[in-house]
Formats: sequence, structure tokens, C-alpha cells
Amino acid sequence: MSSSELSALSPADLTTFVATQRTAYDALKAKELKLDLTRGKPSAAQLDLSEELLSLPNGHTSAAGTDVRNYGGLEGLPELREIFAELLGVEPSQIIAGGNASLTLMSNTLINALLHGAVDSERPWSQEETIKFVCPVPGYDRHFALLESLGIEMVTVPMTDDGPDPVATAALVKDDPSIKGMWIVPTYANPAGSVCTQEVAAALTSMPTAAPDFKIFWDNAYALHHLTAAETKSADVLSLATAAGNPHRPVIFASTSKITFAGSGVAFLAGSVDTIAWYLKHLSKSSIGPDKVNHLRHVQFFKDAAGVRAHMDKHRAIIAPKFAEVQRALTDGLEGRGIAEWTKPAGGYFVSLDVLDGTASRVVELAKGVGVALTPAGASFPHGDDPRDRNIRLAPTMPPLSEVAAAMEVVVTCVLLAAGEKLTSGL
Amino acid sequence: MSSSELSALSPADLTTFVATQRTAYDALKAKELKLDLTRGKPSAAQLDLSEELLSLPNGHTSAAGTDVRNYGGLEGLPELREIFAELLGVEPSQIIAGGNASLTLMSNTLINALLHGAVDSERPWSQEETIKFVCPVPGYDRHFALLESLGIEMVTVPMTDDGPDPVATAALVKDDPSIKGMWIVPTYANPAGSVCTQEVAAALTSMPTAAPDFKIFWDNAYALHHLTAAETKSADVLSLATAAGNPHRPVIFASTSKITFAGSGVAFLAGSVDTIAWYLKHLSKSSIGPDKVNHLRHVQFFKDAAGVRAHMDKHRAIIAPKFAEVQRALTDGLEGRGIAEWTKPAGGYFVSLDVLDGTASRVVELAKGVGVALTPAGASFPHGDDPRDRNIRLAPTMPPLSEVAAAMEVVVTCVLLAAGEKLTSGL
Repeated sequence: MSSSELSALSPADLTTFVATQRTAYDALKAKELKLDLTRGKPSAAQLDLSEELLSLPNGHTSAAGTDVRNYGGLEGLPELREIFAELLGVEPSQIIAGGNASLTLMSNTLINALLHGAVDSERPWSQEETIKFVCPVPGYDRHFALLESLGIEMVTVPMTDDGPDPVATAALVKDDPSIKGMWIVPTYANPAGSVCTQEVAAALTSMPTAAPDFKIFWDNAYALHHLTAAETKSADVLSLATAAGNPHRPVIFASTSKITFAGSGVAFLAGSVDTIAWYLKHLSKSSIGPDKVNHLRHVQFFKDAAGVRAHMDKHRAIIAPKFAEVQRALTDGLEGRGIAEWTKPAGGYFVSLDVLDGTASRVVELAKGVGVALTPAGASFPHGDDPRDRNIRLAPTMPPLSEVAAAMEVVVTCVLLAAGEKLTSGL
Repeated sequence: MSSSELSALSPADLTTFVATQRTAYDALKAKELKLDLTRGKPSAAQLDLSEELLSLPNGHTSAAGTDVRNYGGLEGLPELREIFAELLGVEPSQIIAGGNASLTLMSNTLINALLHGAVDSERPWSQEETIKFVCPVPGYDRHFALLESLGIEMVTVPMTDDGPDPVATAALVKDDPSIKGMWIVPTYANPAGSVCTQEVAAALTSMPTAAPDFKIFWDNAYALHHLTAAETKSADVLSLATAAGNPHRPVIFASTSKITFAGSGVAFLAGSVDTIAWYLKHLSKSSIGPDKVNHLRHVQFFKDAAGVRAHMDKHRAIIAPKFAEVQRALTDGLEGRGIAEWTKPAGGYFVSLDVLDGTASRVVELAKGVGVALTPAGASFPHGDDPRDRNIRLAPTMPPLSEVAAAMEVVVTCVLLAAGEKLTSGL
């Protein structure tokens, strides 16, 4: 097969093309595959990098002499907060270390704002008639599901290569006081892989908002998860916001879920000192303190910020070849066909694949038919609804490299077959 | 000094008595003590019993072959749920294992009910004009603080030797649909030490309630924390409720906070299968799963339910002498004086001391003046308001035995001095 654009083929050639792809697809079916590219989970080889954690900590005493086995210390172990303050570009007084899930910190922050109001709110958000959040799309499905479960409406803006479209965002928030916040995955966005530039961050932190207590939920889940030696630095959102006179606008989230163990890491929340005090005040009603033994365990394992960075190099060595295989398969199979575009991320956990409009669901269905599980089409949009039915999120970290290659052969074949079906459906 | 009742003394003898106690008090001041009986925290010696946990787990695979280091398994590790199902008298399908704090599970349960409604609610509790909870007093201050922070009103009933007064409770809940639930610490109550009998539990689980979705928050924090060989068994609240046709009424909470490590244990929530499904549905929005490495760590440490029971015997060996010292000091110093009563718990973490009406705050103030921190008077009542200003919660587990003895000498002296002051104030 040549790799000319499908839309340039004659009807007869298109029909032949579909038949060829159907044959290829049936051959894949005979392989009885059972592969999974659905979720951004670390592989066993990545988890093995942190195996030493299982026999730590040595001793049970913090640098300040605290017995970490007992109650207390709601803000988390100081030495762990110091390490991640450095990595996230904030002061130790601006960060707390919590439990095993940043998603829980996000949920808590939203629920606190609903029930009590944010740190700078006039009243609880639940007393507003309507609350909305700006959601860059494509985005993270769990962000959207969380908002939906809390009855918060979603308005979308495009995710660009430089972060959420700042002009579209500013236009939405300037006159509508019901828009109380927005999501951003600033570095290596889920799933687009884009990095929010300092300029876009400056625009978002300084833009006028009708809601005086507007919040940027800055979910920096992949801040340190580089796929290249460039090691992009995240925009300094807290300093920018403070300089713009909106110090309480950003609430920063991060975790070691994809650094150490996905279920047994440590999550972090950062923001202005007032934001931290606000969060801790509400947290004190539902917790006597986080798992400080796990904090100490992580401190002893990492030693310092440089230790975290060195550890991430080892992750990169494992997952960069998988991302390279995804790019190779997509380029070899789809480039020049005029039916697909995809991201080439320099970090993070995902490749975002846009196929021919109206065929994403069909691609996922076809892949399932030959034993390859893909994230449901539309998952990266609020309510799972991709208006163009074209976006598919690929998550290549979990399977071994050989399985990534096998699964990507399926993806390419399904994208081609679905496009061919679509283009011939009107013949 | 004889130990006749103070109220029987002549004015002159009373004045002499106060002077004697003042001298004793001043002598204590000279010792420059720094002691703390405020909170129910395990001592370092108790925490040492679980030191092996710091180098567990061996390996990272569950009985079912799950890699516990990765995401997932929202309901917690099956083998840990089995152990605590047996200990708490429920089925494994009726219990989940969560993070490090049962208080967080209680808070989540209340917030879910507020925002979404309980499993059997017609609508979210937040849509009711008023919500109230029945609070047995004296009770656990964090229960009350949690309700207060969520705007839930509190109505009190007396805590008897057999649990919350069932007649008073039934009378409150039968006609008032705004009363949505009640707290109970059923076994070795905080602070009263009483044990809710099977009969009282039967009454509470079967009583008619105006609210169709009435909940019993059954905080069984001390289920296994026996101070005597009797090892009282908790009432079987879930079976009783099911038999009474109210299967969704109890929500059971427990944790290993005072079994292994106070900040790094595992918390449990139990209830009807529908209650569990309801809880997990909402939890799935804010968590991808609990710390299963810590679950496996606890499984390997305990091995089985008998392992937990054997472990609790070691706790008892450490703390029973401290409780004995509290009893000795109170008996030697206060018995027969007619100014104090106290509980003789067979388990749990507290002794509840009732002093002469109107003197509890003064006792706490006096103790502070000689370097002994006591829980603030009134702490065991909603809003910290003990209407008779007589209740003081003593928590003897944390300090070494010698410090318990020293602190109790202060307590006794302060109780006597405050009573003497009170009785002479009208002379």
C-alpha cells in the first residue's frame, strides 16, 4: 500500500483498501490477543524501582525527633514537604503532605469550598445557584467525573500546545460569576501532553474573573515525568498569581503515585499560606494526621530532591521506548493518510490520538473485537461526550514493550479500517 | 486527714482543709512537672509492639496475585477485610478497608449523606431545613466537632453503664424527622468506658424513627481493647438491625490506630452490602484505591484474627497497670469524700471523672498551673459545654507509669482543692 491520503483515493481503490484492512483485521482476530492500553498505570518494572520502600523506614523518628508512628502532624513530615517544595517551586510553608491520593485532596478542596467556601469566598459555594468550572479539552476524565458527582457544571476551552487557551478562558470567566474555577494539568497534560507556558500561566493567574474567589486547580501530576533530557520546568504559578495580586487563586496538587507506588505514595497540596491554613482547618475535623511512617519511608528512600530527579531518570529509561514504539507505529501506519493526528509528548503518561471525525467510537469497538482494550472514546471530555467523536487516549506505560507494539498494530489497523468504512459509507 | 465527706466538715475544718490542699498544691508546683493526660494516644512501648511492620511487607503480591503497589482495589485487600470481618462480627462482603483514619471514613459518610443522601434517603440531607444527631454524653469530642463543622445540630442523651439511654433516645427520634442519626462508641465508650449491651443495641436498631434513613454511627474504636481477661464481645449490631428490618441503619467504624500505629494503621467501614456499595460509589470519585501495601503489611504482621487478639494481650500488659494506678490514686485520694465519682472501665483508653459540680474547669486550670495538661473541661460534651461543669476525661495510656502516678497525685490534689474552694466560697 502506498501512504497517500485516503480521501484522494478513487471509490474503487477505497473499496479495495477497506477489504485489505478487513483482511488484516481478521488476521489480528486470529491472534486472540488480550492487551490493555486503557489507563495510565506504571508497569511492574517501574514499581520495582521503588522496591526498597517495602523495607523502610529504618527507625521511626523524624529529623525533629517526632515519633512518626503516633498521631499528629496534620501538615505532614517537614523533611518530605521540603523536598517537594523544592521540586514544585514553592516554599515549605506553602505545601502539605497528605495520604496516598492527590485526587482525594482535589475532592476535599472542592467539598470544603462547597460546604464552607474557599479561603477567599464570601459564602459556601453550595449557596450559589449554579457553579461551573472551565475544563480544557481533551482533559482528565476523573477531573470531570468529580465535578459531575458534585453537581458542578462544565464549560470547555481548547487545550493548545501551550496549555489551556487563555483567550477563550478569559472570555468565559470575565463576566460569569458562577464560574468558580478551572482545571489544568500544566505539565505534560493528560492526555494532550502539552506544557502550560509561563506566558499562559501569567495570563490565567492575572485575568480578571467575575468570581472573586476563582480557583485554578493546578494538577501537576506529571511535573517530573520527563520523556526527554529537556526536563521542562513547570510554570511558577504561585509566584505569578501572587505578583498579579491573586495569591489564593492557584491550588497545586501533586503526588508520588507515578514516582514510587501508585497506590501507596504520598500526595501534596500547595498554595498560599492562607490556602494551606484554610485546608488544614477543615482537614482537622476529619483527620488527626497523615501516615507519617510513609512520609519518613519516602524521605529515607529519596534523601533529597536530587534523589527524586535521579529516580525519575530510571522511569524514563523504562517508558521512553514504549512511547517511541507508539510514535513509530503511528508514523509508519498513519502518516500522510490524512485521517489522524497525534501528540508527540515530551513527558507524562499519554498520547492523544485524533482520528477521522466520527470514527473514534468505532476504532475502540474494533480494537475490543480483537482483544485490545482502549480507553472509551470521549473519555477525555466532560460527560464522556466528544462532540467530534475523534479523540482516543493511548496509555502505553503499563504493558511490556512487546505488548505495546502488538497493541499499536491493532490500533493502526482499526484506525485505517474505521476511516475506510466511513469514507466508503456514502458510496 | 480523715476521708470523711467534705460537706460534713465544719466551716473551720473546711478552711483548714483548703489550706492543707493549698500547701500540697504549692509543693507540687515546686516540682516543675511537665505531664500530659490529655489525649488517648498509645505510648512508645505500645508502638514498639508493632515495630516489625516497619520492615514489612515481604514481597508485594496479595493472596489473589494482585500487585499491591499499583492502583485499584477500592474496597481494600480481601485478606485484611476477612480478618477484621471476623473480629467485628460481619461478613467480608460487609466491610471495606481504607486509609489510616476511621475519622475520615465517618466524615466521608456524613458528607456523602449531606451531598447525595444516604443509601436509603429520598434526597440529600443538605436539602433538609435542619439536621440533628443524637449524642450520648459524655462522648467523643471529635464526633461533636465534626457535626458542628457540618452544621448538624446535636441533642444529647445520657450515656448509661449499658450504652446510650435507649428510652431517652427512642423518645427523641420517634417524632422528629430532622434527627438523622446518632453516635455510639459501643465498646468501652469514650470517655465513659461503658459497653453497649445486646439489649440496648436491639432497642436502638429496632426503635421506630421518624426519619426513614436514620443512621447509627457505630464507632467501635475500642472493640478489641480489653483491660481484663473478660474480653467483652461487642453487640452484634448489624444482625440485630437486619433482624429488625433496618439493615441499613448501622454504619460501623473501626481502625488499627490503637492496635498498630496511631498514624499509620488501617481504618474499616462496615454495614449492609448496600451501604458498602453506596460508600464505594461515592468513594470512586475521589480515590483510585487505598494503600494496599499497608494492608498487606498488616496482613503479614497479624496473620489472622487470633494474631490480632494475641497482639492486644500485649497492649493490655502495658496499659492495664496505668489504669490500675489511676484507680488507686482516685480511690486513695477521693473515695468517701462525696465530691467525685469515676468510671472503672474494663477496656478502652479513658477514665471519666465527675468532680463536684461547677469545679471541673477549676481543676483543669489548677492542674495546668503545676504543669499537668488535662483535657479541657467540657470536652466530652457538644460545643465543649458541660452543663454541670463536672466532667474530666483522663487518658493514662501515653505517659510512662511513673508519670501517670505523678500526674494523678496532681489530679487528686486539684480536685480536693477545687472542691474545698467551692465549699468555702459561700462562708
